[in-house]
Amino acid sequence: MDPASVSSVRSGLLAAVEERLAGVLKEELNRWSAHGERAVVPVGEVASLVRAGGKRLRPLFCVSGYLAAGGAPDAPEIVDAAAALEFLHTCALLHDDVADGARLRRGLPTAHARHAEEHRAQGWNGEPRRFGESVAVLAGDLALAYADRLMAGLPPEVKPIWDELRIELIVGEYLDVDTAVRGEVTPELARWIAVWKSGSYTVRRPLEIGAAVAGRSDLAPAFETYGEKLGEAFQLRDDLIGVADDSERSGKSAGHGWDAAALRGRMAANGGAAEVERRIEQLTEEACAAVRTSSLDPVWQREFAAMAFRAAYRDR
Amino acid sequence: MDPASVSSVRSGLLAAVEERLAGVLKEELNRWSAHGERAVVPVGEVASLVRAGGKRLRPLFCVSGYLAAGGAPDAPEIVDAAAALEFLHTCALLHDDVADGARLRRGLPTAHARHAEEHRAQGWNGEPRRFGESVAVLAGDLALAYADRLMAGLPPEVKPIWDELRIELIVGEYLDVDTAVRGEVTPELARWIAVWKSGSYTVRRPLEIGAAVAGRSDLAPAFETYGEKLGEAFQLRDDLIGVADDSERSGKSAGHGWDAAALRGRMAANGGAAEVERRIEQLTEEACAAVRTSSLDPVWQREFAAMAFRAAYRDR
Repeated sequence: MDPASVSSVRSGLLAAVEERLAGVLKEELNRWSAHGERAVVPVGEVASLVRAGGKRLRPLFCVSGYLAAGGAPDAPEIVDAAAALEFLHTCALLHDDVADGARLRRGLPTAHARHAEEHRAQGWNGEPRRFGESVAVLAGDLALAYADRLMAGLPPEVKPIWDELRIELIVGEYLDVDTAVRGEVTPELARWIAVWKSGSYTVRRPLEIGAAVAGRSDLAPAFETYGEKLGEAFQLRDDLIGVADDSERSGKSAGHGWDAAALRGRMAANGGAAEVERRIEQLTEEACAAVRTSSLDPVWQREFAAMAFRAAYRDR
Repeated sequence: MDPASVSSVRSGLLAAVEERLAGVLKEELNRWSAHGERAVVPVGEVASLVRAGGKRLRPLFCVSGYLAAGGAPDAPEIVDAAAALEFLHTCALLHDDVADGARLRRGLPTAHARHAEEHRAQGWNGEPRRFGESVAVLAGDLALAYADRLMAGLPPEVKPIWDELRIELIVGEYLDVDTAVRGEVTPELARWIAVWKSGSYTVRRPLEIGAAVAGRSDLAPAFETYGEKLGEAFQLRDDLIGVADDSERSGKSAGHGWDAAALRGRMAANGGAAEVERRIEQLTEEACAAVRTSSLDPVWQREFAAMAFRAAYRDR
């Protein structure tokens, strides 16, 4: 496959992923609207967040892993797997924003903040904040149910990777919150958090899922190294952006509360900004080396190197 | 199968479910403790709640549906399915207790309350309540990941039932919270909430899953009627117990905040306590009629009738 075909085939698959996401949401919006406008609220929150966009990094890595492993360009399984990863991410964002008390996400007010505000404005029973949080937690649970439903038709080799991804993400999230509230983190723990929250979740496991759908589980070791290195670089860049950030620029809330504390803790544990830049450079090089020494087609080796540099040197 | 064998085979399977739950938890506790005591916290919360007991109603219905459908008494699939239902329930309880701000569950302080208290006592960064809620939400997500992992090995006919169960439960939960904060509920909406939160989740879908594991999806219509009728009776009994309740008796918090408002709203929509008792009697009779006119073995018809009466006339 030449570079132009790589790009066009991949764009086609990613467009199919968007259609799949929209199709699931439309079907569920129709289904629940038959029970009145109130039954539509949870799926409406999932739909708003999916439609608000985002980088779609997990579908990108999943589809890339699949094509690099020689998968046919028109298989519905890979579209389902990539869409499932985006629904899982939607769940993670909804639950994270509750944990962080975040006000903005993808440039819009967060689900919990909006529903708390509605509760306040309507003068309903109970506490506005608790209501907003309940809606966001349930909407996240629903996004996850859609993700799992999409995973149902995939080959059995894929399921254990998906299950691991979820468990690692949750433990990584917990340790992130835990180290933040304590204001203490060891370099080793900071590295594990980066591996589980970013390396594994965003890069390694989506690539492995793509390769497994294409029947090439043998690529897992190369993708493991590439993903863990790049994921750590990605998380370190996230921290550098976070430190310099204001809320207009990223569409997320600027670090409030323990989120900011976690950032400062990690930056300190990692030796400060200049040291973090050096570490990003080294990790990106190690990620590229892992694919350069694999059995992947040279066109894909170059593409994965380009993706690594874009992720490690992005500005938002 | 005679009644004594029904009882002894079922007890054997339910004991195997307890072993499976304990086995998953032990493996995960070991795995994460290798990363230090902090990495064990989320799985520790799942373990505490599972070990605290509970009625195990969903495993009971699942295993009963399986045996009534002629399933072999020693298949590992049914043990996995029933254990998955209990892990899903663990997730639902952890997330519900955050939504309700509940202080007690199964006679013990709730996960979010305990971690908020620890945060306060340690003087950590940020807000104690938000920390407690984050731990409980993540622990719930983890319980669900274990549930899904257990479902992976089941026949493909089972997966759509599982996915529906989850989606119905979430929408039912949302509508319960929504009607509670608004303090208004129509009889129709009250009935749907009972169907989705109890009938489907506790009775119908577990029975259907059991029957599907045994390869008898044809039993679904009988179990649908039995489950929906009994589930509504179960929810109505829950409301009557809730109204009369004090926290010592049930191990849950007495209705605070919108939980109490929801109860009062439902009781009023349902015509008051005497009317609710009449409705429970009618629903229980209809549930029994659904199994009496099915192709189930008479021993199981009688057993399901007995289970219906125990659920509809329980005192906690």
